[in-house]
Amino acid sequence: MASMKQYDFSKTAGKPIRCRAAVSRKPGEPLVIEEVIVAPPKAHEVRLKIICTSLCYSDITFWRMKEFPGCFPRILGHEAFGVVESVGEGVEELKEGDSVIPIFLPDCMDCVDCKSKKSNLCSKFPFQITPLMHRDDTSRFTTVEGETLHHFLYVSSFSEYTVVDVVNVTKIDPEIPPNKACLFSCGVSTGVGAAWKTADVEPGSTVVIFGLGSIGLAVAEGARLCGATRIIGVDINSDKFEIGKQFGITEFVNSKNCGDKPVSQVIIEMTNGGADYCFECVGMAKLVQEAFACCRKGWGKTIVLGVDKQPEAQVCLNSYDVLLGQKTLTASLFGGLKPKTDVPILAKRYLNKELQLDKFVTHEVNFEDINKAFELLIQGKSLRCVIWMDK
Amino acid sequence: MASMKQYDFSKTAGKPIRCRAAVSRKPGEPLVIEEVIVAPPKAHEVRLKIICTSLCYSDITFWRMKEFPGCFPRILGHEAFGVVESVGEGVEELKEGDSVIPIFLPDCMDCVDCKSKKSNLCSKFPFQITPLMHRDDTSRFTTVEGETLHHFLYVSSFSEYTVVDVVNVTKIDPEIPPNKACLFSCGVSTGVGAAWKTADVEPGSTVVIFGLGSIGLAVAEGARLCGATRIIGVDINSDKFEIGKQFGITEFVNSKNCGDKPVSQVIIEMTNGGADYCFECVGMAKLVQEAFACCRKGWGKTIVLGVDKQPEAQVCLNSYDVLLGQKTLTASLFGGLKPKTDVPILAKRYLNKELQLDKFVTHEVNFEDINKAFELLIQGKSLRCVIWMDK
Ligand SMILES: [Zn+2]
Ligand SMILES: [Zn+2]
Ligand SMILES: [Zn+2]
Ligand SMILES: [Zn+2]
Repeated sequence: MASMKQYDFSKTAGKPIRCRAAVSRKPGEPLVIEEVIVAPPKAHEVRLKIICTSLCYSDITFWRMKEFPGCFPRILGHEAFGVVESVGEGVEELKEGDSVIPIFLPDCMDCVDCKSKKSNLCSKFPFQITPLMHRDDTSRFTTVEGETLHHFLYVSSFSEYTVVDVVNVTKIDPEIPPNKACLFSCGVSTGVGAAWKTADVEPGSTVVIFGLGSIGLAVAEGARLCGATRIIGVDINSDKFEIGKQFGITEFVNSKNCGDKPVSQVIIEMTNGGADYCFECVGMAKLVQEAFACCRKGWGKTIVLGVDKQPEAQVCLNSYDVLLGQKTLTASLFGGLKPKTDVPILAKRYLNKELQLDKFVTHEVNFEDINKAFELLIQGKSLRCVIWMDK
Repeated sequence: MASMKQYDFSKTAGKPIRCRAAVSRKPGEPLVIEEVIVAPPKAHEVRLKIICTSLCYSDITFWRMKEFPGCFPRILGHEAFGVVESVGEGVEELKEGDSVIPIFLPDCMDCVDCKSKKSNLCSKFPFQITPLMHRDDTSRFTTVEGETLHHFLYVSSFSEYTVVDVVNVTKIDPEIPPNKACLFSCGVSTGVGAAWKTADVEPGSTVVIFGLGSIGLAVAEGARLCGATRIIGVDINSDKFEIGKQFGITEFVNSKNCGDKPVSQVIIEMTNGGADYCFECVGMAKLVQEAFACCRKGWGKTIVLGVDKQPEAQVCLNSYDVLLGQKTLTASLFGGLKPKTDVPILAKRYLNKELQLDKFVTHEVNFEDINKAFELLIQGKSLRCVIWMDK
């Protein structure tokens, strides 16, 4: 039985909707809640009523960017839960009233990549950092005065209504509370998927996680779910260990307190030769090198989840170490998950009480207080702050 | 039925053997065939009568080295077929008369690595570039005058008799002709294993091989065996394409004739987005980068088989490309094969006429002409030159 509220969308379908959105007008400045006009969905698009949205660190990264791909004015937000308000021409997969989450990573279910079991990088709609819709490179948002507002990661969920391409929407079981469902849109899926899908962590394994933000903690949750026995967290902030324990972190290394030793050496000693799986969740090329160094020779896997802030940063590995170690380096975008087939599996594991999501939601605010959510995440006080559109 | 000649070893067992060996006395100078004394095997060792040996490029690399790990006087050679002459204390796995091949990579069958399905890097007897035996760091070879001669890669097969640790010996079906069996000791296993075991090439795949020496051609043979449909060879010598065709190479790129384009760009265009598997068989960090660049986003695997001649050489990958490409980089030492369990499987596939080895043997010489084998390989005229000890 669906616990969802029923909505009557018959009066808005096919027409522009005037509603509230939090607009990012200048880099780093508080969002401004404004009245905006949301156009009806074009072919292969759907318009969503956003129920709640949560703040991910990428929103902050792009909000701060002074140059492209930073882009203003823009409606940020890419983790959300919503209900389909109306559908454009040719949409058969979704209908009015469906419970859905938008997901930044396209899944057309039709190209060679989407059909392959090995890839989640759609080649028909390649993921790009564009501020517009996929198919016609235009926006569905304007101000009341007619000024164009840009999209963000194909989602733009900091709005009461948004238009999303059908390749960026996944149906979600309406039994899942909205403030948990929205977590599947990005961070939690990325971390859990990296352990489950990309690394395929084996029971009894030793795992090291560099960076204990939400993504690192989601990796821990994924590793716990896969049966890892030792989950070693590495961070420069020792407070993260207390939080980490709740997510299954069993040991902690403060990389600032390793003295003369590189953190990889400390971990090699702790693990008697290196970890089975190392996850780099900070986005620093140098840490990828440390992760590679401390994964075990013979079978150790290093999984990269972040990208260095310096676009020209290089991950450099010694040629001799590469051959003699026989380790593996790989990466995980959206946890290696296929949005439309794998996210429903994770959702089911949440409903079966195997996957724990509740601890990720540390704060909840009303839409008017969205800037408070930014402050909490910037100050490192929140993991996920859920923003309710209509409470 | 065993076609093997029967030997009577009863008169030598337990005693030193005086026999001929080709001794490498000075870097880059012709080997000298001398009378040497081969001590009886100590505990966990066996003494082998070498029937034939083949020349691998690593013999030449170490023969040329003026400084450590170059080491003189030394008995080189590490690809061979032999018969067990006598066994030391505690050897239960092998007995006098067994047909065997020595393999440089130890396999104790007992440590966590040897017992794991995921690793072939024995941790009880870690592979090291030492000129001595594993267990007591001494040599079993002296000249008639009592001068110590050094071992090479735990094998030293350029001698009529040699002593090898039991962890470096694999039994081989005596039905396999000696001049084919010896190929399993190193190069052919390395290449075939890299495609079969490390990469696990899927039927229908597109494969790129950088460097069409024996190892690259063995990768081609392995890829063909796994059902790859396109096998693209890359080399700076166009003559290699004619040879490569016999090993299943379907297309050829001369990396010197790519104009302004990097070879990776040429391959991306040929393959409409990149190859499924790329093998770097040259041993150049820069080529590893090219290989990584031209393997397909989403699932492409780059397998490193060589080590750069510059010990400090780095394989450098752009952080952004690593994350967004979701490719995999890994390495393959001895083809990722476990000497005692996987080599017998390959041997069986040879006997079943699935794996083709005959084309690798381009030349055969008598022991007296061993320096001719060096010339042929240095001049690029041979793939494998088999050296018969007693013909
Ligand atoms: Zn697709
Ligand atoms: Zn995100
Ligand atoms: Zn072992
Ligand atoms: Zn070799």
